Amino acid sequence: MNFASDNIVGASAPVMQALVQANAGAMPAYGNDELTAGIKRRFAEIFDHEVAVFLVTTGTAANALALSSAVPPWGLCICHEEAHVIDDECGAPEFFMHGAKLKGLPGVGGKLAPAAVSSYLDSLPKAVKQMPPKALSISQVTECGIVYSPAEIAALGAVCRERGLFFHMDGARFANALVSLGCTPAEMTWKQGIDILSFGATKNGCLMAEAIVVFNRDLAEAMDYRAKRAGQIISKGRLIAAQLQGYFDDDHWLANARHANLMARRLAEGLTQLPGVRLAWPTEANEVFPVVPKRVHKALQEAGARYLTWTEISLPQGEQISADEELIRLVLSFATTENEIASFLDLARAGSARQAAE
Amino acid sequence: MNFASDNIVGASAPVMQALVQANAGAMPAYGNDELTAGIKRRFAEIFDHEVAVFLVTTGTAANALALSSAVPPWGLCICHEEAHVIDDECGAPEFFMHGAKLKGLPGVGGKLAPAAVSSYLDSLPKAVKQMPPKALSISQVTECGIVYSPAEIAALGAVCRERGLFFHMDGARFANALVSLGCTPAEMTWKQGIDILSFGATKNGCLMAEAIVVFNRDLAEAMDYRAKRAGQIISKGRLIAAQLQGYFDDDHWLANARHANLMARRLAEGLTQLPGVRLAWPTEANEVFPVVPKRVHKALQEAGARYLTWTEISLPQGEQISADEELIRLVLSFATTENEIASFLDLARAGSARQAAE
Amino acid sequence: MNFASDNIVGASAPVMQALVQANAGAMPAYGNDELTAGIKRRFAEIFDHEVAVFLVTTGTAANALALSSAVPPWGLCICHEEAHVIDDECGAPEFFMHGAKLKGLPGVGGKLAPAAVSSYLDSLPKAVKQMPPKALSISQVTECGIVYSPAEIAALGAVCRERGLFFHMDGARFANALVSLGCTPAEMTWKQGIDILSFGATKNGCLMAEAIVVFNRDLAEAMDYRAKRAGQIISKGRLIAAQLQGYFDDDHWLANARHANLMARRLAEGLTQLPGVRLAWPTEANEVFPVVPKRVHKALQEAGARYLTWTEISLPQGEQISADEELIRLVLSFATTENEIASFLDLARAGSARQAAE
Amino acid sequence: MNFASDNIVGASAPVMQALVQANAGAMPAYGNDELTAGIKRRFAEIFDHEVAVFLVTTGTAANALALSSAVPPWGLCICHEEAHVIDDECGAPEFFMHGAKLKGLPGVGGKLAPAAVSSYLDSLPKAVKQMPPKALSISQVTECGIVYSPAEIAALGAVCRERGLFFHMDGARFANALVSLGCTPAEMTWKQGIDILSFGATKNGCLMAEAIVVFNRDLAEAMDYRAKRAGQIISKGRLIAAQLQGYFDDDHWLANARHANLMARRLAEGLTQLPGVRLAWPTEANEVFPVVPKRVHKALQEAGARYLTWTEISLPQGEQISADEELIRLVLSFATTENEIASFLDLARAGSARQAAE
Repeated sequence: MNFASDNIVGASAPVMQALVQANAGAMPAYGNDELTAGIKRRFAEIFDHEVAVFLVTTGTAANALALSSAVPPWGLCICHEEAHVIDDECGAPEFFMHGAKLKGLPGVGGKLAPAAVSSYLDSLPKAVKQMPPKALSISQVTECGIVYSPAEIAALGAVCRERGLFFHMDGARFANALVSLGCTPAEMTWKQGIDILSFGATKNGCLMAEAIVVFNRDLAEAMDYRAKRAGQIISKGRLIAAQLQGYFDDDHWLANARHANLMARRLAEGLTQLPGVRLAWPTEANEVFPVVPKRVHKALQEAGARYLTWTEISLPQGEQISADEELIRLVLSFATTENEIASFLDLARAGSARQAAE
Repeated sequence: MNFASDNIVGASAPVMQALVQANAGAMPAYGNDELTAGIKRRFAEIFDHEVAVFLVTTGTAANALALSSAVPPWGLCICHEEAHVIDDECGAPEFFMHGAKLKGLPGVGGKLAPAAVSSYLDSLPKAVKQMPPKALSISQVTECGIVYSPAEIAALGAVCRERGLFFHMDGARFANALVSLGCTPAEMTWKQGIDILSFGATKNGCLMAEAIVVFNRDLAEAMDYRAKRAGQIISKGRLIAAQLQGYFDDDHWLANARHANLMARRLAEGLTQLPGVRLAWPTEANEVFPVVPKRVHKALQEAGARYLTWTEISLPQGEQISADEELIRLVLSFATTENEIASFLDLARAGSARQAAE
Repeated sequence: MNFASDNIVGASAPVMQALVQANAGAMPAYGNDELTAGIKRRFAEIFDHEVAVFLVTTGTAANALALSSAVPPWGLCICHEEAHVIDDECGAPEFFMHGAKLKGLPGVGGKLAPAAVSSYLDSLPKAVKQMPPKALSISQVTECGIVYSPAEIAALGAVCRERGLFFHMDGARFANALVSLGCTPAEMTWKQGIDILSFGATKNGCLMAEAIVVFNRDLAEAMDYRAKRAGQIISKGRLIAAQLQGYFDDDHWLANARHANLMARRLAEGLTQLPGVRLAWPTEANEVFPVVPKRVHKALQEAGARYLTWTEISLPQGEQISADEELIRLVLSFATTENEIASFLDLARAGSARQAAE
Repeated sequence: MNFASDNIVGASAPVMQALVQANAGAMPAYGNDELTAGIKRRFAEIFDHEVAVFLVTTGTAANALALSSAVPPWGLCICHEEAHVIDDECGAPEFFMHGAKLKGLPGVGGKLAPAAVSSYLDSLPKAVKQMPPKALSISQVTECGIVYSPAEIAALGAVCRERGLFFHMDGARFANALVSLGCTPAEMTWKQGIDILSFGATKNGCLMAEAIVVFNRDLAEAMDYRAKRAGQIISKGRLIAAQLQGYFDDDHWLANARHANLMARRLAEGLTQLPGVRLAWPTEANEVFPVVPKRVHKALQEAGARYLTWTEISLPQGEQISADEELIRLVLSFATTENEIASFLDLARAGSARQAAE
């Protein structure tokens, strides 16, 4: 059982098949091919909006490029204090933004509250020493596995509009959030004020396919140059386009996400039936964050189960992890099987029983 | 007939097969998998030297990262005035080097002569206003399709050692140069003083597989951080590693390169038999640079043949392109067929005859 | 009464005189003059250590250049969460460090505690996504007007050595700290592990004279190039050197600092005798941070007294500013007169009395 | 005799006097003082145009900041191949522009010809690999001491307008060019299409006073932030403002420039009367570029005369420096005396005679 992340498996079958099919024949290089053009049109349909689409190789590149189009080198970008962009990308956004600064704000479950953003903005001195705020970035799904509702996104979007900030969404797990909400891609993005989106597909079934989807034309203008000078325009562009074709066809992406989310719910339900196990945050997408007795954690580890331990930074006020407990993260994917869930629960149950017996 | 570049086709069959095979199962992400580890060992064997290897997604990224490890932000990097790094990467090296400067020097056929480099270095003022020279970068195959001999590389390597410069090779067409020379990878690189190499595999049979191969440990130290912050560490690292496995197995890469070079020679031989056609530079790898009568060019274009026209900057002294002539570039690949060569020659011959008749 | 900052007055008389004297005659440009050479030797004497000295035009430039020599673009620099470098320089350090990150930690009175630094360092994941910590920067005097003792600096220096961090001191008010401690410049810097120092002289009597003083040779190597490409090498270098001559001669700088600190103590003593006035942090240098009843603040403002209001971020645990109070910052300088102190106290007293009467 | 540069002397008397006078009293820091405000209005009067003015500490900073406002990080800036910005600033423009590229074009006497610029622009491929041209920068006076006429500037301005380039003038010797042409500041700048100007005052009488004068509002928007994060906003802003007051009052700056230019003409006239001495480029401002017999050069050197030798890159076609000759640069300033000119000519004459005698 490996629940360390949703990027430990390869591509799903339809994606791989599309890639193999697209391999034949000559096509213009650098994304000037028909396959890529078709995928870009596909994005416009899916989002029901004119969009500029840039295919890149990693989520880090998508985020860093997106932010660099929204934030000048002397600007400030607000995000959650545990956001991937501030914590997990080795400074890629700062590199691509040429030294602009990310400011992390606290918030339960990895979510930013509009009031917290506004009050932080109010606190900034009006002086040239102060880097001016230029963008807000949120993660959908958040780093704690929960999902912003369209209304929550809209409320942050209103702050952005009012304050003149661009609004970025890091959608590394876009599909998982989408099927969790049951809304349309439009309802989760531009209709609530999102200007630019990092659309992740790698975790949910592709081998390597990420897209920057730009709703606000101003942010698209120089993106091709930015991507090229970042080494992000691959020569055989069909590699990404073909995967996305397989990904989108027959709503395969939504099916994948639904499966991963379902696996997460199953796992969460099973775990919370064990004594002393509770969820740090609700399971709203494909990640489960249980707080487990330390000895259950130990039993799981000894049995070779793979997952990450997590920090308690974004717990609801008043919640605490005791010295006997461990907060862990379990990530499920399109490839997770019911069997894996069952085996993991068996192990946890055994660990829990052993503990009780002692 | 599309001879526009060697990146217009997909992956060769063995490469694609290896990719499909490697798709199954869970593996640690971000290149921490066994497949990637194995490929890194493979590079050490191939180069007969301890090497640090970093797998990246584009040749531009490989070059830019390699140069950024060799040149500080206030340093100067010398290259040919038509080098890919200075002309074709939208400033990626300058971005990754944080503003360091590329200085292009002239040289016949895209080659730098040791004396030209030395005399340029001598001309630089010894003053703080002068960015200090820190690296030399050459392209093997050059942008004009010719190949540095090991002795030529060694002579430039000696200049580098004497002047304290790091020595970089842009090996976008490494395999084509290698089989052209018939030497070992070691003889074409570190044995002649190369510190760091951009090893290209995409053009010669992969879908997207480029590697930075570092012979000089000092240049490897921070590369992982550099790559991460450039969005160049893909999560499902097997994607690149698997391709390279298929690429190296059974010397498939050398077979591919030999085929492409052979196709180039055939095409060159056929073209130079036509009246008024000559080669701007000898055909030493998989590119042909014929000077053709303008009306032959026109006939080819009208028939839908695809290739690029080229600049005459690096012609041997005294050579000139007349107003009636066109310098064109034809690139052959592992996928080029004898039939395509024959068809192209037929078209050229027809164009040539028509011209004569008029 | 203008206690807004110590940079609101011009140069002190001896400094101005030295500048006027040095104006005559021809000298080599760009700091290659004898005056500048002499000042550099002077620094070595004052610090009793071989030093490399770079004269620059602003404290922001001194800090940003110093940090850029210590932190690579993918590195992390730890500082206090209210440090000037992180809060008041519009991202200059991030610009000069090419995107490296500043991480602010909390601490009472603007001071970092060794344990807080160590425990933060322990919390960092060992992974390529994590920018590696490379330097620690402290402000002496701190942003809350208090002074690190040599022992406190030494304790942080030990953490730096143990963890492989460079140790930077922002000495914008270096002289004020020095005379407050009554120690030697060596005892406040390299003897406690400081590698590189931003030595401020502008606030304490010069018009514009800041120096980067480097104790650790490794950090000096490329500084000239860094300064030049930052537009920080002024052509008529005598401008800075002459000021520093006037500044150092006859220990003028120490006299200036002693005066400013004395004025601060006087003001603090006077204010704390008023009912309801207390100090947020002890007055250890030339800044006073009183918490005053809001109506005293109002009375002072109405009378035209100029100073800043301050944030309560670094208050000792348990301390709070009530809704009826205001935390303010008063900065005294070499030019502050006893009269100004008396007038200010009169105003405060009157405001306080009025309040009581109402 | 030291004719090495016009920055080897201090400030002229009226400038120094203004500085001394402005030293007294308290003023808001960071250029928010009345003196600075007054100087900014003065610039608007002098240029007969609404302008945004930013006072900085070096010509390098002025150029780099100006260019960074006109050229995005992926853009190209065209200049003369011997321009100060490309050759003498240790990569400051590339640093401030975050990796944008300077492309130097040839041209007689350091001047760019409109046709040369246009034809270079035409040669650029229309592809994402090509950094898009965004600005043109000229030096007035050029690096070879000659002056663009208003008509010549206008012709380049027309190219800029047509091609969508911003137009920058490096006016390190602005005053010398101005009095040479006898036109108004407006006629030399915005009336011919200049968008942004580096206005130098240091060489012509100040100690350290440079200004960025922005005619095109779009380029002024973020300049304060850019300057702050470059450490270019000095706290005691009166330092620069006061100098400029002394500089502008009673047209002192024009008098200084006229004197320097006159000295140059005298020196040029004297030198060209010697056998075998000719001017590489006409003496149009305060620099003389004679080609002298090598032994005259030797005699001057032996006598301790200080000046630079120069490169022959921008000579008119057909002109050559023989092995017996040396091209030298002599720079005159507001402080040069007739005596110095006479002594230099005496030395040159003696050297010339000696040569003839041998």
